[in-house]
Amino acid sequence: MDKLPKRAANCVPLSPVGFLPRANDVYGDRTSVIYGRVRFTWSQTYARCRRIASSLLNLGVRKNDVVSVLAPNVPAMYEMHFAVPMAGAVLNTINTRLDAKAVAAILRHSEAKLFFVDYQYVRLASDALQLVADSGEPVPLVAVIDDIDTPTGVRLGELEYEGLVVRGDPAVELPQLTDEWDAVTLNYTSGTTSAPKGVVYSHRGAYLSTTSLLLSWGVGTEPVYLWTLPMFHCNGWTFTWGMAARGGVNICIRDARAADIYRAIARHGVTHLCCAPVVFNILLEGDATTQLAAPVNVLTGGAPPPAALLESIEKIGFQVTHAYGLTEATGPALACEWRDQWDRLPLPERARLKARQGVSVLSLADADVKNADTMTSVPRDGKTVGEIVLRGSSVMKGYLNNPDANDNAFKGEWFLTGDVGVVHADGYIEIKDRSKDVIISGGENICSKEVEEVLFRHPAVSDAAVVAMPHPRWGETPCAFVVAKDKAAGVSEDDVLAFCRKHMSRFMVPKKVVVYDALPRNALGKVEKVKLRDEAQKLAPAVPAQKTKGKTTNTTTVGGRRGEHPVAHVMAISRL
Amino acid sequence: MDKLPKRAANCVPLSPVGFLPRANDVYGDRTSVIYGRVRFTWSQTYARCRRIASSLLNLGVRKNDVVSVLAPNVPAMYEMHFAVPMAGAVLNTINTRLDAKAVAAILRHSEAKLFFVDYQYVRLASDALQLVADSGEPVPLVAVIDDIDTPTGVRLGELEYEGLVVRGDPAVELPQLTDEWDAVTLNYTSGTTSAPKGVVYSHRGAYLSTTSLLLSWGVGTEPVYLWTLPMFHCNGWTFTWGMAARGGVNICIRDARAADIYRAIARHGVTHLCCAPVVFNILLEGDATTQLAAPVNVLTGGAPPPAALLESIEKIGFQVTHAYGLTEATGPALACEWRDQWDRLPLPERARLKARQGVSVLSLADADVKNADTMTSVPRDGKTVGEIVLRGSSVMKGYLNNPDANDNAFKGEWFLTGDVGVVHADGYIEIKDRSKDVIISGGENICSKEVEEVLFRHPAVSDAAVVAMPHPRWGETPCAFVVAKDKAAGVSEDDVLAFCRKHMSRFMVPKKVVVYDALPRNALGKVEKVKLRDEAQKLAPAVPAQKTKGKTTNTTTVGGRRGEHPVAHVMAISRL
Repeated sequence: MDKLPKRAANCVPLSPVGFLPRANDVYGDRTSVIYGRVRFTWSQTYARCRRIASSLLNLGVRKNDVVSVLAPNVPAMYEMHFAVPMAGAVLNTINTRLDAKAVAAILRHSEAKLFFVDYQYVRLASDALQLVADSGEPVPLVAVIDDIDTPTGVRLGELEYEGLVVRGDPAVELPQLTDEWDAVTLNYTSGTTSAPKGVVYSHRGAYLSTTSLLLSWGVGTEPVYLWTLPMFHCNGWTFTWGMAARGGVNICIRDARAADIYRAIARHGVTHLCCAPVVFNILLEGDATTQLAAPVNVLTGGAPPPAALLESIEKIGFQVTHAYGLTEATGPALACEWRDQWDRLPLPERARLKARQGVSVLSLADADVKNADTMTSVPRDGKTVGEIVLRGSSVMKGYLNNPDANDNAFKGEWFLTGDVGVVHADGYIEIKDRSKDVIISGGENICSKEVEEVLFRHPAVSDAAVVAMPHPRWGETPCAFVVAKDKAAGVSEDDVLAFCRKHMSRFMVPKKVVVYDALPRNALGKVEKVKLRDEAQKLAPAVPAQKTKGKTTNTTTVGGRRGEHPVAHVMAISRL
Repeated sequence: MDKLPKRAANCVPLSPVGFLPRANDVYGDRTSVIYGRVRFTWSQTYARCRRIASSLLNLGVRKNDVVSVLAPNVPAMYEMHFAVPMAGAVLNTINTRLDAKAVAAILRHSEAKLFFVDYQYVRLASDALQLVADSGEPVPLVAVIDDIDTPTGVRLGELEYEGLVVRGDPAVELPQLTDEWDAVTLNYTSGTTSAPKGVVYSHRGAYLSTTSLLLSWGVGTEPVYLWTLPMFHCNGWTFTWGMAARGGVNICIRDARAADIYRAIARHGVTHLCCAPVVFNILLEGDATTQLAAPVNVLTGGAPPPAALLESIEKIGFQVTHAYGLTEATGPALACEWRDQWDRLPLPERARLKARQGVSVLSLADADVKNADTMTSVPRDGKTVGEIVLRGSSVMKGYLNNPDANDNAFKGEWFLTGDVGVVHADGYIEIKDRSKDVIISGGENICSKEVEEVLFRHPAVSDAAVVAMPHPRWGETPCAFVVAKDKAAGVSEDDVLAFCRKHMSRFMVPKKVVVYDALPRNALGKVEKVKLRDEAQKLAPAVPAQKTKGKTTNTTTVGGRRGEHPVAHVMAISRL
């Protein structure tokens, strides 16, 4: 039994990148990518990726080098999920909502060799590159991604993506993957401490997560997938690779506004899309709302969709599956697998069941809720809380160059999510509290400590604490409590907000600043955040009534200009 | 990137056995197995498997020991797919259609330590065990599987399956899998040479094949799977494990007659079943035929379903997916993924497309058709034939204790199927000729050489050759051409057939024996089988007209008593 050796024919390293040559073989003539007037087949996508990979090699990119990308959901962004690892390199997609400082921190920490920048983000990228240069660290080579449908001519340096496609040679022999444990992508997460952490995925983990998510969501043959979820979130929850595995159609849109989403659905027969629940609100607002001609499957995560919202969104034809995930688990780790018998229940009961985060995806060997001290499983009573822990192939390789973070995240055979949940009698897990230090706003993670650190740097602030404040549109937003250094002089909310806007990414800026004489602290001197959360609860903007029949009966304008929000920037499963 | 170590939390060995503890966790209260009046939940199935595993350990079963089973699709057969590897051992399911000699050969070659025998097969097993004892080789310990629904009291030695369940301890710590390359099952195939070959699957290969087949066939949540396909064929084309992965319901039936199949579909809401096309004929015969209340998905393989048959079977509600596979590829290797646009084509065109074997399943890195001499790919013209070759995770570990067979089967990075096919312009593969030496009768493989060897042992036969003869029910049957030693005395067909019935498994016995003065041989002395096949073609029984509206307008009784055939024995993808 154990004398049979591994052979090249029966032990091929697992890699999601391999889905592309297979798609070229078996789905070659089918449409792979649609963006504006641009259309590719899987054969064309494969050839383009081979060309880019060969150009990367020509530019000196080598095994384990990091290639960073700052781009929305355009074809180049999709292609790089294959082309970069095909050259042996590691793809690092950067959240376009970050500010220059955060982008620079990622470029430095990842030691990126090459940096692709969509023309829309040239300003942000230049600022970030300047910061890298100022720090004396090596500056990556830069290539612009011009718009492929309507070229703008915007450049940043010599290189442009389509030029690299043209000059690439699709026939060049590319390096072969020999170890499936090799890194494939690197995704930075704000996580629970202020320094962004680089989450590394292996080829093996990404392959197994991809097939397992296709199964969990029940993605059949010939899916038409609309890219509303940014690919920079966990590589689009692995559906970048998943569409190649299924020979699906990728509908790329630059700004996922409600009108664009409905137009894409109508024009291309979209069958699947992923988004944060905040997008449901956006889809129900404005004039674009329409009854869908055919059902569209939606995978969502983060805050559980409230019953009324669920009813409204499902009424117009979206079929919602609720999931829970985090960057460290390669996207969704739990999915609320629906049971037919639940269809017969009244809506509030259905919503309650659907709001649960569900059961582990197949690539996880196990997901459990444990008492963090004893590491024993909590009883299945739907009441006893514990920490959600994961084990299996979709758990990341680890954090890049961050031994402390790795030591904290891994405990024995478990990965600790930091999130708090319960297990129901039927084995479905429900989250009761996300990690205390993370505020989830419009699907983006905001680390409270990161915001606090900025507040502490304000010259007039002596003490500060940031907690989540409920928000009708964004789910949560940061609420800051500050203490003035000079009680007599005080500190103004506007002044603090202006300081925040200058020193942090826009989406992290608190929506509310409260000035206290002193923060509530316990006997050990620790800020009593529970009290502050109660206070924030009272300060929260009113919840708007649910929209009915295409009209919004009550809304709030806090948090954004309604109807103008590019959806692409505000969606992600809570911790993704 | 490469400094991040593998950890217990992120690098768990892949094993399909792990689907069972997960099913216990997340589908615990759902029905796992139904057999007659017996019903289990996934929690019960898990506990029962743990008990059996602990009993196996008590009986002295150790890592890599072989545990053989001779049984139809009863709950014990299902459970052993988990319980045996949970004890670290290797499951060997034996085809119940084999004769005592073949069963003995398998027990000896596999060095089985323990042999489970369903009560119906006690006679066959005793004969086989006697042959093993006579040969002086070690005889395995035997345990009977009595009928769990209606116990018969039939025994063979001391041990009985339910007793082992009762005496087992579900709390015993079981050995942990540390290497996913370890063997999980051993399946004997008649293959292309006369000696049966033991095909070994690894835990890794079985896991990847399972998830990939669930995807290829589009098995969603809550499937209700009817066990028409014997589990002894490639572990039920991996759906033994697949049902645990999906938390599905396994409907076990001992004898899969048409009436039983229709009853199970009506009673349990069957959504999926697998079978050889020969079963379609059986399902369309007799009084049992009914319009299905809801569609049933059927995965079939082997001979492509003829257009008229396809039309009849789909008309009553079976939705057919056509696949191609072989034991060495852990079941289906290619599946004819359907494209929606084909729905609009006229039936003959649809049947032509559906008759193609299709595209590789995801667990294969590649499937190709190559010129066997040059190992270059044939053009995609649907005309140029070549050998079908496979590469990837669903290719077996290898043949047990058979270096020659392994040397012949593996060529560089490819596994050679021995089957001949073409590639169409759209990348779909179509088989043109199964391996020359294999006759596929009712889904079972018959090795022509194996039959020839018996004929050569007949005292009155001097020369013999066996080829496939088309057959309206069985697809193919063996047709023997023999030459008498004593031309004057000759040799009678009846005498040869009686000899065959005595010395080979029933299903291998030729349906026709032709006496020749001399076999046609080429200049090198090789039998010209092409000429014999032409002759066999002429001798073939007439094809019956297709049944319409529930009535058979024309049938043939050649090859079996109509309406009485236990279907369970005659189904398998061609080479499976």
